[in-house]
Parts: sequence; C-alpha cells; structure tokens
Amino acid sequence: MAVLVFGTVTLDTVETPRRRVEDVLGGSGVYAAIAASFFGNTVRLVGVVGADFPQTYTAILETHGIDLQGLTRVEDGKSFRWGGRYTEDFNVRDTLFTELNVIEGFQPVLPETYKEAPYLFLANNSPASQLSIIEQTTHPKLVVCDTMDFWINEEREALEALLARVDVLVLNDSEARLLTGDANVVRAAETILRYGPERVIVKKGEHGAISITESSYFNAPAYPIRQVADPTGAGDSFAGGMMGYLASVEDTSEEAIRSAMVYGAVVASFNIEDFSINRQKRVQFSEISSRYRELQDAVRF
Amino acid sequence: MAVLVFGTVTLDTVETPRRRVEDVLGGSGVYAAIAASFFGNTVRLVGVVGADFPQTYTAILETHGIDLQGLTRVEDGKSFRWGGRYTEDFNVRDTLFTELNVIEGFQPVLPETYKEAPYLFLANNSPASQLSIIEQTTHPKLVVCDTMDFWINEEREALEALLARVDVLVLNDSEARLLTGDANVVRAAETILRYGPERVIVKKGEHGAISITESSYFNAPAYPIRQVADPTGAGDSFAGGMMGYLASVEDTSEEAIRSAMVYGAVVASFNIEDFSINRQKRVQFSEISSRYRELQDAVRF
Repeated sequence: MAVLVFGTVTLDTVETPRRRVEDVLGGSGVYAAIAASFFGNTVRLVGVVGADFPQTYTAILETHGIDLQGLTRVEDGKSFRWGGRYTEDFNVRDTLFTELNVIEGFQPVLPETYKEAPYLFLANNSPASQLSIIEQTTHPKLVVCDTMDFWINEEREALEALLARVDVLVLNDSEARLLTGDANVVRAAETILRYGPERVIVKKGEHGAISITESSYFNAPAYPIRQVADPTGAGDSFAGGMMGYLASVEDTSEEAIRSAMVYGAVVASFNIEDFSINRQKRVQFSEISSRYRELQDAVRF
Repeated sequence: MAVLVFGTVTLDTVETPRRRVEDVLGGSGVYAAIAASFFGNTVRLVGVVGADFPQTYTAILETHGIDLQGLTRVEDGKSFRWGGRYTEDFNVRDTLFTELNVIEGFQPVLPETYKEAPYLFLANNSPASQLSIIEQTTHPKLVVCDTMDFWINEEREALEALLARVDVLVLNDSEARLLTGDANVVRAAETILRYGPERVIVKKGEHGAISITESSYFNAPAYPIRQVADPTGAGDSFAGGMMGYLASVEDTSEEAIRSAMVYGAVVASFNIEDFSINRQKRVQFSEISSRYRELQDAVRF
C-alpha cells in the first residue's frame, strides 16, 4: 500500500564533537520517506525545494523508489537550510540557524495519484498545512502526525483542530509535557487522547517509545547503539519506518502497531550511525530483520 | 534462602511540591530489605541507628519479618538524618542536609547467623565497608552492590577493589557515565564489566533499567506510574526486590535475573506512590504479581 509523507526536504549543516558536515540531504520528509521505503511500499513525498537542490540528492530519493511528483521545485527560490550542533552526549541540540526560504508560505497541492494514499504521515509542519493535506486526501486508512514546541506555543488552536482529525500523534516526551503542562509523561499522553487521537506515541530517544490508547500501554525498546554519529532525523525515521511496516502488512491493529514501532526503532538506529542518510543507503532488509529479532530477545522475560 | 542487606537506616525529611514529611523511616537498607521481604525469604539487615531511632520504626521492620540482629543501636549516638527536595517533575533532587551521625566510622560486624547468607546486597556505602561485608561472609552465591558519585569521585581505588569482588554492579545511568567518562550508557556498562562484575545493571528511573553481560542485553521496563508521591528509595527498592525474587527461586541465571529485575521494577513502582515505606506497608503479593503481568503485556510484540 502507498505511504504519503508530508515533510521538509532540506540542506543541513550538522556539527558534532567529532565532525561537521555542510549542506547534506536532510529534512523530516526525507528521513521519513526513506525509512518507509524499506518495507516495499510506494512512498509518495510531498515537499518543496529550491533551484539549489542538488540533482544527486533527487537521485538518492529516486534510488529508494520514492515518488517525487509531489516535490515542488521553486526555480527562483532557495532550499530550506538548517544548522544544528550536538554536545558530547547527543542529548542537547543547539539550532545554529534556520533559513526557511521556499518553505515559507508553501501551500502543498497533492498530485491526483497521491490523493488515495491510505497511509499518511504528516511530519512536523504548521498544523494548517498538515490539515490541508488531510483534506486533500480521500479515505485515508491511518493518519499519523508529528508536531513540535514551536506549534504548541504559537499555533495552539490550529494544532487542536488538527489533532481532532488524526488517528495517531507522535511526539517527544518534552513536547507531550509542553502540550499538556503535565510533567508525568504517562498522564500527559492520556490527556492528549482527549484532543482526538486514538493513540499517542511518545518518543524518548535512547529510552525507546511508549504507545498509549484508552485501553493499551506499550513500551517499545530502543536499539542499543554504541556509536552515535548524528541523531538528526531519528524521530522521523522512527515514524517513517513505522508507517512503512504498517502499509506493508495493511494492518492498523494494536499488534501491528507494536511491531511497527519496533521496526521504526530499528530503522532509526541505523539512521543515527552516520550523518544524513548515509547509513540508510547501505542498509539491507536482512539487517533490519536481524535487529528486530535482537530487540525481541532484549525485552523477553 | 536468606538475603543479607547492608545499607543505611535513616530518618528522612522529604519535600515535594505537594508535601513535606519529617524524620520518616528511610535509608537504602530499609528500602532494600522491605522490598526483599515480599518474596518470602529471611532478610537480614546490617546497619546502625542512634538512641533516637523510634521503636515504632523497628516494629515496622519486624512486621516485615526482617532480622535486626545486625542492626547496631548506638546508645550515645544519633541516627543518620537526610533531607532532600524534589522539583515538579521529580527528576531533580536537591540534598538539603546530610547528618552522618552514627554512620561515621561505623564498622559493621556480622552476627554469626548472617555469615552464610547466600544473597548479598550491598547498598550504596563506602567501598571499604562494602568489601568488609563480603570478607565476613562464607561462600555467597550472588554479590550485588550499588555505589554513587561520591565514592566514584573520592574513593576510586577502593571502589575498583570492590568491583573485582562483586557479581553484579547496580548503578544509575549518570553514575555509569561518571565511572567510565563515557556518555554512551551501553558502552559505559560494557566498560564496567572489565572492572570485574559479570553483569552491570543500569537504572534509568522512569525509563526502566538495562542489564548487560558479555553475552546478553536486557531492557527492563519501568511500571508506568501516573501519580508519583516521592521517588526516594526507588533504586534500593528495585535492587531489594530483585534480590528477594532471586533468593526465592534460588537461581541466578539470565532468565531468573530478567524476571527479578521486573519484580524489582514493580516493587519500586509501589514505593514511589507514597512517602517513606507507607505504600509498601499495604502491598499484597497479588498486587505485585498483577503489575508483573501488566509489564509482560506492555513489552509484548
């Protein structure tokens, strides 16, 4: 089944204590789409780039079988650029710069073939633009969205309108606390259910993720990574991997979502082992399966 | 089988955003011993109190069947007092005061009946006193110890000598980082194995715990608590519950330790639901079993 990913396609500059890379391929849409592509589905990407977006990057996305009909190229614009720096333990990220460029005012219009995509992942973006994607689709089977502190603080009303229309909200623990004003993450997730989503997935980085519905609680492990190179995109890889798995099994049950979250964690674990999507370029599905089985063993008691 | 617990027995003052309690029963030895007592074993406590230690507190420990022969009462001394304050999200604890009193210079001497205890838990204490307990015992089947930043910084050499003699080291993630200078917790735990323990268990509070040996990796969930009253003693309850379960099944295999860690997490979850050991006073074993089964379901995929 097809997965539609709406997210950013960016040129990133990333600094870690060990290395600095400039204008590498990044963005929530890229990480999520590539993650979803490992599961044998058609992945349709919606986003925008400028005339400076390298052909080599487009080629990488095409190599992963990602449909780029929905990737708008603004010939007189520049691509979204983001710069960030991580400290030694990778838990603190400082944003060095954000140049919105072509992102600003972008009104996504879905190509006809995109409108029937049953699995929608709306990566972090303005709630209004995320809602506009939902409204352009017909009968999506599962709508999953992400958000971040900026929208929680600045676009609260639009965000609440969006939440009433999504099936699953994926967000970080700090964002769950911010959205609800509740320091207890479990209680915060339960509160968010009242805004509309039937499931809230809270990402906790190296500590895994939890999924909460009215009647279920799931604790997904993270894959233990000994050498983190660059955590950028981990959350979007997680969500994209999850969507890719769900679309491949055509199932949105509790069982399927649990497996999907663990597949998402595995794809994210590869992502952080190198900068940009360098590690994903070399990942074989057998490696994904192998880490999935390792995690099955890691939680067994 | 008997569990020997060496730890502090204190009068605690605890402040949270909602409540303040003064001179309540606390200490690593108390939390660990009570946790171990739920599993039907003899628990032998080694510690020291002053003449001011209330008879009602001694009675509570006796109600839990804890052997207090090894609890020295210094008639001209005052009990160890500790005061701490938690912030809203319970992740930051400020120590308000520490009055060592009778703890200072205490040289534990084991009663004869204690020497053959097969399961030893050495709660956080000076590495020299922890080692002295090991040396007074005969053939312990499993030696588990805890430590903290103070000893890592101030008594490094003695701590390394201790680590060469223990089977399992239990410590917080921040302590694992401090001990090894490695920000990556998985790698830090693997490094600690080289000091001697065959297993390192890293406690991560609300994120659960991980266990690492040369050939295994286990990710234990935390029980999701919606209303935390006071996290004091959670780590010692975890370790004590773990020891209590292991002694009850007389098994130290990987399988047994995995179950034991989850039982430890469950006992810790009750501990933090009220101040001091108030919640534990009312816990039935059926409640422990019930939360254990809930955690089995929470990690299943």
